[in-house]
Amino acid sequence: MAAENFDGFLILKPENIFWTSGFRSSFAAFLAQKNGENFLITDARYFLAAKKLAAKKKFRAILFDENFEKLAEEFRGKKFAIEDSARIFEQKFWKKKFRGIKFLIKKNFFEKLRAEKNSAEILKIKKAAAQVDKILISFFRAKIRAGISEKFLAFELEIALRARGKFELAFDPIVAFGANSAVPHHQPSKKNLQKNENILVDCGAKFSGFCSDLTRNFFFGSPSREFLHKFENLKNAQNLTIKKFVAGAKISAIEKFCREKIGPDKKFFSHSLGHGVGLEIHERPVISQKSREKLRKNQIVTCEPGVYFPEKFGIRIEDLLQIRENRPPKILSKSEKNLIIL
Amino acid sequence: MAAENFDGFLILKPENIFWTSGFRSSFAAFLAQKNGENFLITDARYFLAAKKLAAKKKFRAILFDENFEKLAEEFRGKKFAIEDSARIFEQKFWKKKFRGIKFLIKKNFFEKLRAEKNSAEILKIKKAAAQVDKILISFFRAKIRAGISEKFLAFELEIALRARGKFELAFDPIVAFGANSAVPHHQPSKKNLQKNENILVDCGAKFSGFCSDLTRNFFFGSPSREFLHKFENLKNAQNLTIKKFVAGAKISAIEKFCREKIGPDKKFFSHSLGHGVGLEIHERPVISQKSREKLRKNQIVTCEPGVYFPEKFGIRIEDLLQIRENRPPKILSKSEKNLIIL
Repeated sequence: MAAENFDGFLILKPENIFWTSGFRSSFAAFLAQKNGENFLITDARYFLAAKKLAAKKKFRAILFDENFEKLAEEFRGKKFAIEDSARIFEQKFWKKKFRGIKFLIKKNFFEKLRAEKNSAEILKIKKAAAQVDKILISFFRAKIRAGISEKFLAFELEIALRARGKFELAFDPIVAFGANSAVPHHQPSKKNLQKNENILVDCGAKFSGFCSDLTRNFFFGSPSREFLHKFENLKNAQNLTIKKFVAGAKISAIEKFCREKIGPDKKFFSHSLGHGVGLEIHERPVISQKSREKLRKNQIVTCEPGVYFPEKFGIRIEDLLQIRENRPPKILSKSEKNLIIL
Repeated sequence: MAAENFDGFLILKPENIFWTSGFRSSFAAFLAQKNGENFLITDARYFLAAKKLAAKKKFRAILFDENFEKLAEEFRGKKFAIEDSARIFEQKFWKKKFRGIKFLIKKNFFEKLRAEKNSAEILKIKKAAAQVDKILISFFRAKIRAGISEKFLAFELEIALRARGKFELAFDPIVAFGANSAVPHHQPSKKNLQKNENILVDCGAKFSGFCSDLTRNFFFGSPSREFLHKFENLKNAQNLTIKKFVAGAKISAIEKFCREKIGPDKKFFSHSLGHGVGLEIHERPVISQKSREKLRKNQIVTCEPGVYFPEKFGIRIEDLLQIRENRPPKILSKSEKNLIIL
């Protein structure tokens, strides 16, 4: 923050407040100043929790009540940054509360810092990933039967993932049968599973605020030679691409490499190769052809090429990777990657 | 919209898009114009669904892709309203896409219209409320035992409420035992239930986008005379207050009436009396002492006074009401309101 043209950052985005202060609530702002005087602002509902946390950390808790504007007078004349993820009414609200403060709008300031994870964060992501790996394959082996609906299967998968409340969902699971799997962001529907349909599942758990993400493929019945061929082709491309995820590698070059390895099917690969994962399920770095960035050590990213054949089927294979220096990434996903026939 | 100083409204808030167009997605904008030419803008992932919907409704679906800016040229020179709930980056994004458009920021434009429900909307809210009423009491009778944690009970309650995926949650259930119930927005913790503790549960289901909301109280063991007295006092005040929820009544007067009826305990009533319920769990009208509004027919609101005695216990009783003219509201909540001893 030292090099920036503002005196402090008034953080409003919950994930950024959590990342900088460790505090979670439905109403808070964290004021981080260059001079090191930091303030966690929250209302009566959460003030006790804020004070407890403040006692252990390098900031003060401030009660947001009718006296706040008076308190805020002491900052008059300063320049504060705010996130461009703030809502227009939030910006107005805090402008009123901090009279005589100039606000500068900043994009991705904390998001860029959050992209490289420390060991405690990586441990949480690993725990979330391990929870999915622990249940996924056996869950599908136990549950799959003709006639089960995508919606019900997704509901049951959620319950299994959350393990009586020990985990949260990173996002609502995608469960898609047959032609529905050709829609990359398909929402589980009332469609019932029929013999000789493929099953695509994309899901993630959340542990202590940190997400995981995984996509696997099953087949209920006997896959066609075409399906098997396309699956193996994608799997080989994904495996080869994973090895390119090394600190310092240009992201756009990895994208290009993956599409080359997929070959002619690449025209059915209709989304970007991956994304960073952390407190948010989609966060920095952006893993797309347009990226001008290079990978950095301890970024956690997905590698998830997919091919989608409208009205027929779609296949996506997704692993979660920890970027390392001078060697291929650590693969955090441990679930069987081969097509599982049920 | 006819009387407003803009040519159209570029709607970005998902609930407002759904309310005006019936469309749900993770990326869309709905442009509603005074001249009646309306456009649903979404990307390739959702375009097929948008086109299907457009065929049945009075709008056109527009694909948001690299050609969009050129298409948007035809609106040059117009004035569009946008919601103050838009994020700063969204405002910037759409300003770039619609060149030569002036944006006016509007607060609560659709939210005010959404406050009065039509019969189809009320039916959905009733269905969500009925789902809670169907399971709540028997769920607690079956599940409550010494040692069960708030967190696990809340998890099991969620599963029961969602009924294999037929319903969603309106919000994460609040389950609070003993002293935890003195915190109005308590989050279910690892605390285990002990003999002679009260249980406060605040939960709601969602059906076809519309929410319900209910709070009830249980006691595990034998309540003290003090607890029973405070419960009966609050229940009587709440019952008397409900009768005041009539179209045309001043909201602030109802608030005042409720506090009077609570008597000396009113200083432990630390939040507002209620809120509107619909596509959002908290929406207009605001039911608070500061309100200058009057109730209107077919608003759906909660009446939920609560008294919170720090370190001891809290009690809140909440019903969902449909406002009518010239007579007390229809009470949509059917669950037993008396304290249930388990």
